[in-house]
Amino acid sequence: MIRAAWLLNNQLSFGSVELIPDWQQQGGQLWLDMVDEPQSQEAELLRSLGCHSLAIADAQKDRRPPKIEEFEQFCFILYRGFSSSDELLDIKTLALAAFIGDDILITRRGGESIGVNALWEESKIIKYLQTPPLLFAKIMNASANRYMQAVLEVEDDISDLEDAMLTESNDELMHKLIALKSHLRKIHRIQSYHVKLVKKIMAGEMARFDVEQGELKHSITDVYDKFDRLDSLTLMYYDLCGDLIEGYISLSSHQLNRTMQLLTVVSVIFVPLTFIAGIYGMNFEYIPELTYKHGYFMLWGFMLAVASALVWTFRRKRWL
Amino acid sequence: MIRAAWLLNNQLSFGSVELIPDWQQQGGQLWLDMVDEPQSQEAELLRSLGCHSLAIADAQKDRRPPKIEEFEQFCFILYRGFSSSDELLDIKTLALAAFIGDDILITRRGGESIGVNALWEESKIIKYLQTPPLLFAKIMNASANRYMQAVLEVEDDISDLEDAMLTESNDELMHKLIALKSHLRKIHRIQSYHVKLVKKIMAGEMARFDVEQGELKHSITDVYDKFDRLDSLTLMYYDLCGDLIEGYISLSSHQLNRTMQLLTVVSVIFVPLTFIAGIYGMNFEYIPELTYKHGYFMLWGFMLAVASALVWTFRRKRWL
Amino acid sequence: MIRAAWLLNNQLSFGSVELIPDWQQQGGQLWLDMVDEPQSQEAELLRSLGCHSLAIADAQKDRRPPKIEEFEQFCFILYRGFSSSDELLDIKTLALAAFIGDDILITRRGGESIGVNALWEESKIIKYLQTPPLLFAKIMNASANRYMQAVLEVEDDISDLEDAMLTESNDELMHKLIALKSHLRKIHRIQSYHVKLVKKIMAGEMARFDVEQGELKHSITDVYDKFDRLDSLTLMYYDLCGDLIEGYISLSSHQLNRTMQLLTVVSVIFVPLTFIAGIYGMNFEYIPELTYKHGYFMLWGFMLAVASALVWTFRRKRWL
Amino acid sequence: MIRAAWLLNNQLSFGSVELIPDWQQQGGQLWLDMVDEPQSQEAELLRSLGCHSLAIADAQKDRRPPKIEEFEQFCFILYRGFSSSDELLDIKTLALAAFIGDDILITRRGGESIGVNALWEESKIIKYLQTPPLLFAKIMNASANRYMQAVLEVEDDISDLEDAMLTESNDELMHKLIALKSHLRKIHRIQSYHVKLVKKIMAGEMARFDVEQGELKHSITDVYDKFDRLDSLTLMYYDLCGDLIEGYISLSSHQLNRTMQLLTVVSVIFVPLTFIAGIYGMNFEYIPELTYKHGYFMLWGFMLAVASALVWTFRRKRWL
Amino acid sequence: MIRAAWLLNNQLSFGSVELIPDWQQQGGQLWLDMVDEPQSQEAELLRSLGCHSLAIADAQKDRRPPKIEEFEQFCFILYRGFSSSDELLDIKTLALAAFIGDDILITRRGGESIGVNALWEESKIIKYLQTPPLLFAKIMNASANRYMQAVLEVEDDISDLEDAMLTESNDELMHKLIALKSHLRKIHRIQSYHVKLVKKIMAGEMARFDVEQGELKHSITDVYDKFDRLDSLTLMYYDLCGDLIEGYISLSSHQLNRTMQLLTVVSVIFVPLTFIAGIYGMNFEYIPELTYKHGYFMLWGFMLAVASALVWTFRRKRWL
Ligand SMILES: [Mg+2]
Ligand SMILES: [Mg+2]
Ligand SMILES: [Mg+2]
Ligand SMILES: [Mg+2]
Ligand SMILES: [Mg+2]
Ligand SMILES: [Mg+2]
Ligand SMILES: [Mg+2]
Ligand SMILES: [Mg+2]
Ligand SMILES: [Mg+2]
Ligand SMILES: [Mg+2]
Ligand SMILES: [Mg+2]
Ligand SMILES: [Mg+2]
Ligand SMILES: [Mg+2]
Ligand SMILES: [Mg+2]
Ligand SMILES: [Mg+2]
Ligand SMILES: [Mg+2]
Ligand SMILES: [Mg+2]
Ligand SMILES: [Mg+2]
Ligand SMILES: [Mg+2]
Ligand SMILES: [Mg+2]
Ligand SMILES: [Mg+2]
Ligand SMILES: [Mg+2]
Ligand SMILES: [Mg+2]
Ligand SMILES: [Mg+2]
Ligand SMILES: [Mg+2]
Ligand SMILES: [Mg+2]
Ligand SMILES: [Mg+2]
Ligand SMILES: [Mg+2]
Ligand SMILES: [Mg+2]
Ligand SMILES: [Mg+2]
Ligand SMILES: [Mg+2]
Repeated sequence: MIRAAWLLNNQLSFGSVELIPDWQQQGGQLWLDMVDEPQSQEAELLRSLGCHSLAIADAQKDRRPPKIEEFEQFCFILYRGFSSSDELLDIKTLALAAFIGDDILITRRGGESIGVNALWEESKIIKYLQTPPLLFAKIMNASANRYMQAVLEVEDDISDLEDAMLTESNDELMHKLIALKSHLRKIHRIQSYHVKLVKKIMAGEMARFDVEQGELKHSITDVYDKFDRLDSLTLMYYDLCGDLIEGYISLSSHQLNRTMQLLTVVSVIFVPLTFIAGIYGMNFEYIPELTYKHGYFMLWGFMLAVASALVWTFRRKRWL
Repeated sequence: MIRAAWLLNNQLSFGSVELIPDWQQQGGQLWLDMVDEPQSQEAELLRSLGCHSLAIADAQKDRRPPKIEEFEQFCFILYRGFSSSDELLDIKTLALAAFIGDDILITRRGGESIGVNALWEESKIIKYLQTPPLLFAKIMNASANRYMQAVLEVEDDISDLEDAMLTESNDELMHKLIALKSHLRKIHRIQSYHVKLVKKIMAGEMARFDVEQGELKHSITDVYDKFDRLDSLTLMYYDLCGDLIEGYISLSSHQLNRTMQLLTVVSVIFVPLTFIAGIYGMNFEYIPELTYKHGYFMLWGFMLAVASALVWTFRRKRWL
Repeated sequence: MIRAAWLLNNQLSFGSVELIPDWQQQGGQLWLDMVDEPQSQEAELLRSLGCHSLAIADAQKDRRPPKIEEFEQFCFILYRGFSSSDELLDIKTLALAAFIGDDILITRRGGESIGVNALWEESKIIKYLQTPPLLFAKIMNASANRYMQAVLEVEDDISDLEDAMLTESNDELMHKLIALKSHLRKIHRIQSYHVKLVKKIMAGEMARFDVEQGELKHSITDVYDKFDRLDSLTLMYYDLCGDLIEGYISLSSHQLNRTMQLLTVVSVIFVPLTFIAGIYGMNFEYIPELTYKHGYFMLWGFMLAVASALVWTFRRKRWL
Repeated sequence: MIRAAWLLNNQLSFGSVELIPDWQQQGGQLWLDMVDEPQSQEAELLRSLGCHSLAIADAQKDRRPPKIEEFEQFCFILYRGFSSSDELLDIKTLALAAFIGDDILITRRGGESIGVNALWEESKIIKYLQTPPLLFAKIMNASANRYMQAVLEVEDDISDLEDAMLTESNDELMHKLIALKSHLRKIHRIQSYHVKLVKKIMAGEMARFDVEQGELKHSITDVYDKFDRLDSLTLMYYDLCGDLIEGYISLSSHQLNRTMQLLTVVSVIFVPLTFIAGIYGMNFEYIPELTYKHGYFMLWGFMLAVASALVWTFRRKRWL
Repeated sequence: MIRAAWLLNNQLSFGSVELIPDWQQQGGQLWLDMVDEPQSQEAELLRSLGCHSLAIADAQKDRRPPKIEEFEQFCFILYRGFSSSDELLDIKTLALAAFIGDDILITRRGGESIGVNALWEESKIIKYLQTPPLLFAKIMNASANRYMQAVLEVEDDISDLEDAMLTESNDELMHKLIALKSHLRKIHRIQSYHVKLVKKIMAGEMARFDVEQGELKHSITDVYDKFDRLDSLTLMYYDLCGDLIEGYISLSSHQLNRTMQLLTVVSVIFVPLTFIAGIYGMNFEYIPELTYKHGYFMLWGFMLAVASALVWTFRRKRWL
């Protein structure tokens, strides 16, 4: 699908590729949004609009990390958009490519994009399309908001995992924590790329983004703050998960120590006593002790003395 | 609640929004402090004073991290103030937004602020309001002092946890240590943001802060030193907690080894002997050894020999 | 083997060293590709073409890490090419040395090079040899693609290892994970060097690479993006492997705790009861209890009471 | 106590505050050294000499980290001096404040300072007081030497701990190692501050330190080298302690495995055999096997066969 | 011992201190090499040649880390040379001090130096002494080659340790790995200093080293590459050792789990059965079951049923 929005003298017309020649002749600003087009047609169209072939190749790959590069007629941005997430932050992303020209914004993606959808609205297009980079900043902003929402939900999850593990730990909780940590590592990498991308814009490396201009400047700063926060939050949550896992190993060690102390105490006390009982259960014809009048009671006395001494010793060692 | 302090010719008047037109007409400096106002009224008032809408939006969110951004009429600072803390450094924070103009300081917050309260005093306002950035530096300074107080108390706690764990470790101590570590990680992140914020001021990026001016310069340096120290201390305490946890795992391993060596020694000695006693406790009709005259004593001799050999072996291995 | 490709007025001739004098007299561009030549002859030839002896020495060593250095007549690049890989990313590499002059590219290697082979094709040589640095950028690009292919396959492997370990862990899986982690560390080091190498080119440190020229600029940026991605991906996968290993230790701890709790429960219940049974299995002549009418049933009652109490206690501790 | 040394035309006079007016009128250089004075008097004296109130406040606090700040008449340095140390590097420090003017050095401390004492000697004062920053560099130098002495002693301790732990590990050794690691972390933080402090001086940020001047330049470099070495050494020792602890966990794991394999082998062999012996120790009226002629010997044969098979199995698994 | 080599008009004379006045009067270049001289005489000689006293003090200490500092007449370099190494990379180093002047190189060391010995050869001295910094670069180069040789041998050792630990782990292997890791940490620190040292030279900070000059430039780059590679390799091997240790902990955990599962299965099955056998081995006068006709067989049936149920359960849990 290709859809187009053409802004001329504050008048917005919606349509498709047929708006391109109108825009080329009459001026104004154009937003071209392409989804799921056949790759060869897409490439041809982009090339006809002046996009560089290396940029087109990048745009059509699905797994490239975010980047920004300036070409003669366009600034090319590859952005990683938010597609969906589950409760363990297993975020699915999509590649969103943008070619930003002086009077044109081309967005190209392989599926539904939260950022593009949020901005494809008459009022917003009229407001922002006059400055294509500003429009794209707003798209990234909508996307960053969605990432933030998903990441912030994790804080409570970690808190719950913390409480749960300290009380009634089970394998499932550990699996969740390990998975969450792994997903956070992956999101952190994406947001690191986004931070680098926006930093380059702010540093003025892209001539097409006039970052001294008030509205654009503050919008870019706003987006930067959000990515920087995502970067910092995901790293912190990643560390917190790692610390919980390490803390859990430590707790387990302690509990295992206690468990084994109990087992050892019981064994050290009863194993030798059982051996002695076994001795006097033997059927030798001649075992003198068995005929002693008070043999049975003397043995009980001896056993109780040994057991008491052991109990006292283990108490002192704080094993009991 | 909105309260205002208006300084004109060293005369201080307290009041509310009604002081705004006076200040606009007659000059002087104004400090406007807003708490818990309805968001829409608040936004309208701020907009009427010339604040940028992106900054107003940031100011009204509760969880944004600290930042600093320059606008035309104001320097906007988002600061994370100290609200309360428990003995495990579970610090509750609040968002404190400041709009600093040439002759006005607007502070906006969602609850009680230690920094603002410490400075809202006739003598201090008279002393500092003439230079609004100086007044705000003093507010941050009061807040940093409170953070420092909470963080420094932790040193003794860690020391106590260290001693306690080495002597009478229990689950509760481990829980405390894990929680403390997690809280330190979170505070460290906030203070990292504060360090970055003040560093930007010191680097002269904010034209409104004339950091060459003596009084302001030294006050900002003072605040910077405090945040830098908080950053460095929380990171060190975080590391120390992590090292204690790792050290505890190591200690546990060693103690478990000792415990299991004891259990193994007792088992290796008595389990085979008990088996032999069991053998001669069987009721087979024909067991020749049972009829030997000294069979019982020969068996004792054999058992003592085996046990002695094992004890000697384990002694040599230092298991006993 | 030495092969040569000589481009003059868009005419390409293939041959060997005999093309060198032609190129020297008539101009045009020359690509000289040397494999497995005797080191002394190789060195002599390179020296006769103006290569610096330090660079020649570097080129002939097999284990030097990637580097870039500018000499008077040549820019010397030592690149680590991809040779082969197994499913655990045990990548074998080869040293690929390049001398890049204004009108000549000399490549020297000790085995089959994926990058060189991919570019040694009439159409590609005609397209790129006019700008020797561009040709070499394309060689690196082909090599980076091959690395990327190998590294991306790892993602599924890690995912499989993650699932497998959580369900049916065995030693073999752990060995695989440990080996994979170690290989990732080694590839990360190589890619770090490649990133540094291309960064130097992009920073304009090499006068021979006119990185402002459009085609070369975007090709170098493309190669840089790939190495940067390899660097970032291998580091992330390395971290993920480490996290899996640590997570596995934590899971093991938990399962060991459960196992030992079961052993302890069974032991604590049955070991004392077995001792008591042993007591009444002794053959003392006088054991009063044995003659009680309901002695046997009273003992059963006592034993059941003890066992029930213990079971109840362990239930409460959640050991059962 | 306040003591003063006044250098005029190479003539040195010792005294106390009474030397201040002489110095103010006749010139020369003055070193004022203050210990344990009442805070208010101290503050008044410092203020009368032109010290800034923020610097005075810093100087009088006991736990502030090292810093350097330039004021109009003085360069203010807060240095953390060496007070005492035990064999586990539990270093006690003291705050040493210095106000360095063009012709005056004021040192202020809360206890005995090794650096100050080392320099308070007629010959040294005459040699260095003419350049107050040089004198203070020499004070830091003496202090750094004392730190270095304490830190270098640690190398042998770590080596001993390494050997001891691998042979006859006990809890006390582990406690020592954990404590040593924690102290190293704390000293590393102090030395990091000192490195930053001297780096600022070397970078020429302090106008009062003319670091181009030969003698001062080399003295400052010398002090820098020492702090940098302390920083690097404490970090390395800290890492080595952590590695030892981790290595010890690994060794413990291995030994525990061996211990448990022994326990398991003994249990797996004897527990079933003991069960069988118990079976034939039962008093059922009708147990046919008991009446077999060679029942006892057949059972022994069966038991030895089982035991041999198990021993062979465990040998193959290398558990024995 | 002091030896000297004096180069004048391509004529080389060997001798000792007596060559100094000749060199001072007639010019040319001098290399003075001092080993094991009495410290006071050494210091006097160096001072007479114009060396700074701080540099002389540094040169005579044995444990100072590498550094570089420029003085008026000399560039002073403190280098850490290679002395000897064992198979676990327990490298002994020596301090090699160099004073590099316009026409003189003074080397001072406390023992045999591989670098100095490699260059003290008529042909090499004639080749390099005309440019004293070049001669010293070649000395560092020879030393770096020796470090590299020792470090590269480690790769196979780590590979062997990896294989050995996964198959037949024992305490000795773990000790080796822990020692190797600790030695790598120490060499890494030295090479970090060497990298910093050569980086300063390359950055042109030392006026005496004209790093634009071709021969010197490439030689310095060559030395830099080697130190950078040593730095990178030792860090990687250090990480690989740490990863192996951590991997080993994980493997141990897994094996311990398996071991304890076996012990628990055997115990859970046989301990209760042995208890029951013990019950019917008791000598109570009245135990009704004992008189049942098929009591013995019924008991066997019951025991087999219990055992089968347990075996089936453990199979399902994959403990068997
Ligand atoms: Mg990153
Ligand atoms: Mg990051
Ligand atoms: Mg971050
Ligand atoms: Mg951040
Ligand atoms: Mg962490
Ligand atoms: Mg970790
Ligand atoms: Mg760890
Ligand atoms: Mg940080
Ligand atoms: Mg920080
Ligand atoms: Mg710091
Ligand atoms: Mg740590
Ligand atoms: Mg850390
Ligand atoms: Mg850690
Ligand atoms: Mg890296
Ligand atoms: Mg790297
Ligand atoms: Mg990276
Ligand atoms: Mg990267
Ligand atoms: Mg990690
Ligand atoms: Mg630090
Ligand atoms: Mg540090
Ligand atoms: Mg450091
Ligand atoms: Mg250092
Ligand atoms: Mg380490
Ligand atoms: Mg560690
Ligand atoms: Mg390092
Ligand atoms: Mg380094
Ligand atoms: Mg490196
Ligand atoms: Mg490195
Ligand atoms: Mg590592
Ligand atoms: Mg690690
Ligand atoms: Mg670790």
